[in-house]
Amino acid sequence: MKKVSVGVDIGGTNTAIGIVDEAGHVIVKDSISTPDHGDIERYMDELADAIKKLIKSVKLVSDDVTVLGIGVGAPNGNYYNGTIEYAPNLSFTGVIHFVELLQKRFPELDYLALTNDANAATIGEMIYGGAKGMKNFVMYTLGTGVGSGLVVNGDLVYGHDGFAGECGHTTLIPNGRLCGCGAKGHLEAYCSAPGMKRTAFELMAKYNASDSKLADKSFNELNSKMIYDAAEAGDKVALEVFELTGKYLGQGLADTVHHLSPEAIFLFGGPTAAGDYIFKPTIESMEEHLLPIFKNKIKVLPSKLDSGDAAIVGASALVYKEMEK
Amino acid sequence: MKKVSVGVDIGGTNTAIGIVDEAGHVIVKDSISTPDHGDIERYMDELADAIKKLIKSVKLVSDDVTVLGIGVGAPNGNYYNGTIEYAPNLSFTGVIHFVELLQKRFPELDYLALTNDANAATIGEMIYGGAKGMKNFVMYTLGTGVGSGLVVNGDLVYGHDGFAGECGHTTLIPNGRLCGCGAKGHLEAYCSAPGMKRTAFELMAKYNASDSKLADKSFNELNSKMIYDAAEAGDKVALEVFELTGKYLGQGLADTVHHLSPEAIFLFGGPTAAGDYIFKPTIESMEEHLLPIFKNKIKVLPSKLDSGDAAIVGASALVYKEMEK
Repeated sequence: MKKVSVGVDIGGTNTAIGIVDEAGHVIVKDSISTPDHGDIERYMDELADAIKKLIKSVKLVSDDVTVLGIGVGAPNGNYYNGTIEYAPNLSFTGVIHFVELLQKRFPELDYLALTNDANAATIGEMIYGGAKGMKNFVMYTLGTGVGSGLVVNGDLVYGHDGFAGECGHTTLIPNGRLCGCGAKGHLEAYCSAPGMKRTAFELMAKYNASDSKLADKSFNELNSKMIYDAAEAGDKVALEVFELTGKYLGQGLADTVHHLSPEAIFLFGGPTAAGDYIFKPTIESMEEHLLPIFKNKIKVLPSKLDSGDAAIVGASALVYKEMEK
Repeated sequence: MKKVSVGVDIGGTNTAIGIVDEAGHVIVKDSISTPDHGDIERYMDELADAIKKLIKSVKLVSDDVTVLGIGVGAPNGNYYNGTIEYAPNLSFTGVIHFVELLQKRFPELDYLALTNDANAATIGEMIYGGAKGMKNFVMYTLGTGVGSGLVVNGDLVYGHDGFAGECGHTTLIPNGRLCGCGAKGHLEAYCSAPGMKRTAFELMAKYNASDSKLADKSFNELNSKMIYDAAEAGDKVALEVFELTGKYLGQGLADTVHHLSPEAIFLFGGPTAAGDYIFKPTIESMEEHLLPIFKNKIKVLPSKLDSGDAAIVGASALVYKEMEK
């Protein structure tokens, strides 16, 4: 018998859906638009149809396939309540009782669960990825924002209200850069992809760097891939962007180590593709900020999840955590 | 039948020992010198004698007393290994297998455990104090240093190696004040009692404050009680010390909230006796640094443990956590 689970990743634009096997491979996938729906019931109907179609196509291959459950990753997803609560980038307003609405459409499934996207990726790392067998680890997801998931004694930390693990909003620099959340100096304002762009612009301003390979790009054009390419070509500004991003990130990771003393911290997302450019200064900075008892003990590792499918795969892993209970 | 547990608090100068009832009251207590011993075996012998004498004196009152176990709080105490490891302020060097040495002297007791002092106080708050019934909370202990204990899903977080919960060493100010641990800008360098003194000296220097009530005290004389008394008398420097200490501490608490989303954060130790002087700016600063989803949700509360006996009481509470297993 082949066992599979369904992973659903809800983004502002698209909702991605995949059928995932026990090793974390995506067998088939599809996507629907997230905002193109008059109301949540119609969105849920379309989502359920898409899931059922994918299940059907897998069963064409073999009848001997069991669907274990559905896991959902969503911005502001609350695991305890199975809700999406006031997500700023989604067209659904207020509190959406997502798991309840999904269960109505799949009464035969025992394991349905929802959490935020970074938590889902973290559980994916634990079930299928580099954190297999680890009981205490942390994952930082670097992208448009910075998310995180914390694992203590083998379980994800949800906290009192289901919203734990927002390490992107720890303060690195008092009265520093404005963060998207309205506060100042948060890690996300420095270590996200847009944060790296802001650092590049600060440095060009500081050095009057008209000879930088980044100097012909507008603020709205520049992205972290361009910064990486410029670093590869030896551009001083781009290289310093990585140095500084690592310095900032390492400070934040050290704060996390002082809280949780994890075995490892995994880094996930676009900027981590830069490899040593980002890992080396991050690890150096983390070590510099650590208490002696933690020095040279904490591994900082790239995620082993395939970045293209990580959101779906992570969401599907939620099902296995539910089954453990 | 009356049930009691033994709490042992190991400090650099004295080791305090108490017999504690199920409600967290200290029935009898005693202390021995920590450093006045040629070797660890002799210290352990004297400690065991002192514990046995206290147990005997309680049994004089009633034969119907059961001793459940012994809990120990010690600097650099490692719960997993039952060891004290390289504690900088203790006369014991290297790794001391404390629980093993204690078990040899009390073979009849089933529940022996050791952790660091801040973790012990945290468990005390959970078993006897204001955190009864809370599953997710945090405790910061402010004193000569700043310690912390983190509780997730009803259990203390020990992390991968037993050393989690060192929030006093999160970074508040990049390249800020030198911390006792050798790193820069850590919370402990600002929010401990000596940290408050450093802030007072910075402010006197800044304002050339010869009229401050603190201006006649030397660096080695000034303590946080004097700062409190001066604040009560309306001294501007002293009042600003509390404002700034709260501002620093609130930034640190917000980082902890972003990690763990606790129901409450308890503050313990000398500086917290200043009440609103410290709580008000701390809460304001924490709120200012928080993501909207956390705002006005997290309680910041004074510890309900009696500060005089908290270390003993906290250590004794470890026994009840062991019995839960």
